[in-house]
Amino acid sequence: MIQKIALVGFGTVGQGLCEILAAKEKELLEKYNYQYLIVAVSDPRFGTAYNSAGLDMEQVFNEVRSDQKFTTDGCPWDSLEMIRNSNADVVCELAFTDLNTGEPAIAHCREAFATGKHIVTSNKGPAALAYAEMKSLADKHNVDFRIEGTVMSGTPVLNLTDGPLAGCSISAVKGILNGTTNFMLSEMEQGSDYTAALAKAQALGYAEADPAGDVEGYDARAKVTILANVVMGEKLSITAVDCTGITALTPEDIMEAKAENTRWKLIGSVTKSSEGLSAYVRPERVPLTHPLAGIMGATNALTFKTDLLGDVTIVGAGAGKTETGFSILSDLLAIHRAETILPENRL
Amino acid sequence: MIQKIALVGFGTVGQGLCEILAAKEKELLEKYNYQYLIVAVSDPRFGTAYNSAGLDMEQVFNEVRSDQKFTTDGCPWDSLEMIRNSNADVVCELAFTDLNTGEPAIAHCREAFATGKHIVTSNKGPAALAYAEMKSLADKHNVDFRIEGTVMSGTPVLNLTDGPLAGCSISAVKGILNGTTNFMLSEMEQGSDYTAALAKAQALGYAEADPAGDVEGYDARAKVTILANVVMGEKLSITAVDCTGITALTPEDIMEAKAENTRWKLIGSVTKSSEGLSAYVRPERVPLTHPLAGIMGATNALTFKTDLLGDVTIVGAGAGKTETGFSILSDLLAIHRAETILPENRL
Repeated sequence: MIQKIALVGFGTVGQGLCEILAAKEKELLEKYNYQYLIVAVSDPRFGTAYNSAGLDMEQVFNEVRSDQKFTTDGCPWDSLEMIRNSNADVVCELAFTDLNTGEPAIAHCREAFATGKHIVTSNKGPAALAYAEMKSLADKHNVDFRIEGTVMSGTPVLNLTDGPLAGCSISAVKGILNGTTNFMLSEMEQGSDYTAALAKAQALGYAEADPAGDVEGYDARAKVTILANVVMGEKLSITAVDCTGITALTPEDIMEAKAENTRWKLIGSVTKSSEGLSAYVRPERVPLTHPLAGIMGATNALTFKTDLLGDVTIVGAGAGKTETGFSILSDLLAIHRAETILPENRL
Repeated sequence: MIQKIALVGFGTVGQGLCEILAAKEKELLEKYNYQYLIVAVSDPRFGTAYNSAGLDMEQVFNEVRSDQKFTTDGCPWDSLEMIRNSNADVVCELAFTDLNTGEPAIAHCREAFATGKHIVTSNKGPAALAYAEMKSLADKHNVDFRIEGTVMSGTPVLNLTDGPLAGCSISAVKGILNGTTNFMLSEMEQGSDYTAALAKAQALGYAEADPAGDVEGYDARAKVTILANVVMGEKLSITAVDCTGITALTPEDIMEAKAENTRWKLIGSVTKSSEGLSAYVRPERVPLTHPLAGIMGATNALTFKTDLLGDVTIVGAGAGKTETGFSILSDLLAIHRAETILPENRL
């Protein structure tokens, strides 16, 4: 079966995905028997292009590079109409993340589920603000809600716990979930003050013009919420996660920690115990002997506390065009594998 | 479909597996629709027990605890006859590892494949010495050769690269693959000499009475060979891996490294480049800022160099009764998932 894909949002991640798919077309067919068509692209800047037999993606990229509205296969549908009316099997929701309302991504997901289409997304909004609703709508319509890219980009987290760690119970997840702040803390240990570290992070494209999402811990808080809901099966609301960012840390704090063989890290954590669930984001002084202490720069790391394996830690990229593009591919391949399962064996 | 399991070897790993299966029976059914029967157990010490409708495992454990030959469902078959004649779907090969001949494990695997049974094993012999033959026999008979437990026990390595990392190309794998020597090096940094560190490792059950397999690097070399063959698809022979152990390291070497902000680690590595394949096991001085430097005690860690995600590192247990028992469960669940795939979609 050829997987028919619609993209909502054609920025960094969407373009990264399409570049990977094009470069790996032959390899994906040979190794995984995977074939795809991109039937629709919808973006506020370029409008919608739709062709039920598959778009000419070279043409799509040409029009995007010349910053014009789609003309070849141009189509009057807005993104919701495209999701509703297209013949796609999977909608990749790659619009911008809004952690206050989750929109327009939540509306996109609802429309996809209602019309029997899988959702693959790296957008944290729907999963962090409305996971229970999203999962229940997906289940009701017998499609997937796959979100590997919402935590640590394509570095395996949700597909790791869902696949190779299946059979283990996970009672705690703890780690460094925001690359921008980890980069800034690494810079401050080298002698930069907060303002210089932030300016460098912005110059390198790690931090947004408005850095609040990173430095106030909101990005990490969304990820902690997602981990609690998906990996630990807990109905945790984002507002129930205690959240402190790194804005109050001074160069003196950093140097004092260093002198005592510790290091400040912005830690996201969720722990299940007999007293209930505890979840937070806050700067912590980690001993230099702790595995998380050695995670420097924009790298992310996450430790799962399991019943059968003890602690398992994964370390890798937390952002990036290709890395997040791969997260989408990883979920598309997982859907492809599951599509080949006999209906009577589906759970 | 109820998975019918035969165990060859009923030592630490086999007993660990059975304890996990018994403890998680209800959870495995609810979460993964997984049901099993253990139909046979064969062990040089206890003989063979066989019941095509499933053994009473409580009774099996009772007989093992009283160190007697199996009487209930006792059966005159040796392990090869049991593999040939039993009604098992999967044979778990959990006999001792012999890295010189690979026997008797290789014979067990050949017999299982020839009679259409999957192999799941944590035994490094068949995979390190005869991977190409094992894989080709398994493919010919349309069954699996699954070996997650051969590298880092149950910590996901082979199922990680096969599943969530599918779509990435891996050009190098490098890490700490032997817990015993890593524990000894950690002890030596605390002031022990080589002999005291080895004695402590033996007292804790990390090292065998004959420690050569660990301290000479042979165990890590087998794992490097397996990684080259399975993860990187290269036909590397175990004798082509340069191998130096830790026996020549002195307390002075350890302290000199420490004074220069580095740390000795026994590193296993395999790298594919335009010049070909390079594979070795040897002690290396790792800067303290390197992620592998912080891996202390009996923990293992492995870094994959990928084309789409950059470096991805996994850190976790490298041995242990429950940890290796879980590796077998993880492969049994993978077989269960694959069994539900439509025949025309199988690759």
